[in-house]
Amino acid sequence: MTTGLIPEREMRTLSRFAEVYRSDEMDGKAIESLLPEVDSLLVFSWPSFLTGEKLYSMRRLRFIQSVLVGVNHIPFESLPRRVIVCSNAGAFSLEVGEHAWALVLAAAKKIVAHSRRISHGESEMSGFAGEADDIQVLKGKTLGVLGYGGIGRQVARFGSAFGMRVIAFARKDAPDPWVRVYRGRGGLDSVLKQSDVIVIALPLTRRTEKVIGERELSEMRSTSVLVNVARGDLVDQHALYSHLVLNLSFRYATDVWWYNEGKETLMTGNQLIKLPNFVGTPHMSGPTGLATGNPARRAAENTLRFLKGQRPQNVVKRSEYQAE
Amino acid sequence: MTTGLIPEREMRTLSRFAEVYRSDEMDGKAIESLLPEVDSLLVFSWPSFLTGEKLYSMRRLRFIQSVLVGVNHIPFESLPRRVIVCSNAGAFSLEVGEHAWALVLAAAKKIVAHSRRISHGESEMSGFAGEADDIQVLKGKTLGVLGYGGIGRQVARFGSAFGMRVIAFARKDAPDPWVRVYRGRGGLDSVLKQSDVIVIALPLTRRTEKVIGERELSEMRSTSVLVNVARGDLVDQHALYSHLVLNLSFRYATDVWWYNEGKETLMTGNQLIKLPNFVGTPHMSGPTGLATGNPARRAAENTLRFLKGQRPQNVVKRSEYQAE
Repeated sequence: MTTGLIPEREMRTLSRFAEVYRSDEMDGKAIESLLPEVDSLLVFSWPSFLTGEKLYSMRRLRFIQSVLVGVNHIPFESLPRRVIVCSNAGAFSLEVGEHAWALVLAAAKKIVAHSRRISHGESEMSGFAGEADDIQVLKGKTLGVLGYGGIGRQVARFGSAFGMRVIAFARKDAPDPWVRVYRGRGGLDSVLKQSDVIVIALPLTRRTEKVIGERELSEMRSTSVLVNVARGDLVDQHALYSHLVLNLSFRYATDVWWYNEGKETLMTGNQLIKLPNFVGTPHMSGPTGLATGNPARRAAENTLRFLKGQRPQNVVKRSEYQAE
Repeated sequence: MTTGLIPEREMRTLSRFAEVYRSDEMDGKAIESLLPEVDSLLVFSWPSFLTGEKLYSMRRLRFIQSVLVGVNHIPFESLPRRVIVCSNAGAFSLEVGEHAWALVLAAAKKIVAHSRRISHGESEMSGFAGEADDIQVLKGKTLGVLGYGGIGRQVARFGSAFGMRVIAFARKDAPDPWVRVYRGRGGLDSVLKQSDVIVIALPLTRRTEKVIGERELSEMRSTSVLVNVARGDLVDQHALYSHLVLNLSFRYATDVWWYNEGKETLMTGNQLIKLPNFVGTPHMSGPTGLATGNPARRAAENTLRFLKGQRPQNVVKRSEYQAE
């Protein structure tokens, strides 16, 4: 069963190995009677009709494939142990990586603040001395990448192309020998201290929630650029707000937002979005990737692996998302 | 004689080969009596006290070095033939190249428009289908670079790092074999037609003024991104305004502005700066470069070549800037 948006071609291929149902083409009653027969689910955001109770009726459910990279939307607590959950790691790396670099450059060069002032007729031509002090040149600076999956790796490559030294906070060695990897809590601090630009590309798990809080922000350089293309809740919103107010040379640029009652929302509990050192886009990088059809294709391919009895890729370690 | 902003160290080196005077430390009378003795000038923007009449009194003047890359501010018509003029080509390539790429990405990903809507509380979270249609992924697209000097070359490298095919409009072959170069008026059209992203990095000369006019804009794709980091007057402002109004998917992002009575100004004769598909920064890329001290150092080094009787670099072809 899938919740829609899978291209026709992939639907046809899946149909050769399973009976495929689209929940967006069925009414509530039909869905309810079908649930006990469903072996596998292919989902975007978690379907609201799949409450804990309904999940309990899915006695044959064995496999869930997410079209999104992040699986933090999946209700692990309500899933029996037998259910394998797969993320879609790597599927959005290119688009999210490009978007991350757009945010890095926009923040480093203060494109948004300057463009806004110009359109309001408030700006003056830059003089030829001094006034460009808060514009950052990337070449020769240090880029810290938090999380070295597909997106982190893509960002690291852009950093290298811009002549930056690249370091990373990750669990495994980077496949790129020119990237120095730091591990553990001390490793995170090392990366934060050394970096002029920091890009967050971590999954949101029980451990990484608010991984960037007051203490971590204070470890960073007062002129650093912090970019988030992963999940809003990796950053403590209130600590960030205070930090941005007190450090006007520090910049935060994000495409991802905090959850409110399980839903990502552009509303913040403070005046964050009004700050001149805050740049935000409305989670565009994912949809940009989806528009290519690649993520849905990859998700369908991985589901096929499961249906054919092969080992699926990107199996999620459930302990990272739920209490033991 | 120099007009200030040259670092101490370069001033000391120059002093070993010439008597060095800073016009910003002298009064008008002292300057006037010194002019007939001056052999060489090291200038940023053209000093307002050097009118045609004053220039006429500089009987010994043989050499003018610009700290800026562009020399369109130099009053060639008032200069005797014997005076050699040197640009500072290459001195700002890194900083201007980075700024150009910041503008390319800001326009391709619509960072400014989205961030502005968010800060006004007007934006909604992107849905997972369709809404990202006007966000451009650079990989696989074609980058057209107009002018392949130091800045053009830097921009071409960034394009290549983003997986773009790079073509250029230039007079000479590109030193990078992966760049296909087109020449002449037909060549310009070829580049404009093929490119998804176009970066203007041409000098402003008699021939290139308004090189992008109504006809050239109409040759471009309706969804193209046009970025200008060279000089405002390379683009016909009124043709651009009409084009942006009629083609909302076309985007123009610029760091450089049109001259008004010989002075670059953020004022435009229309509502250009209010358009959602216009992004502007107040000529920041130059000052960013100057802040490093590199351009002044290079300009001083080239002046030294002249003072030592060596052949200076970046000698300007005067016929390109004045009527024969």
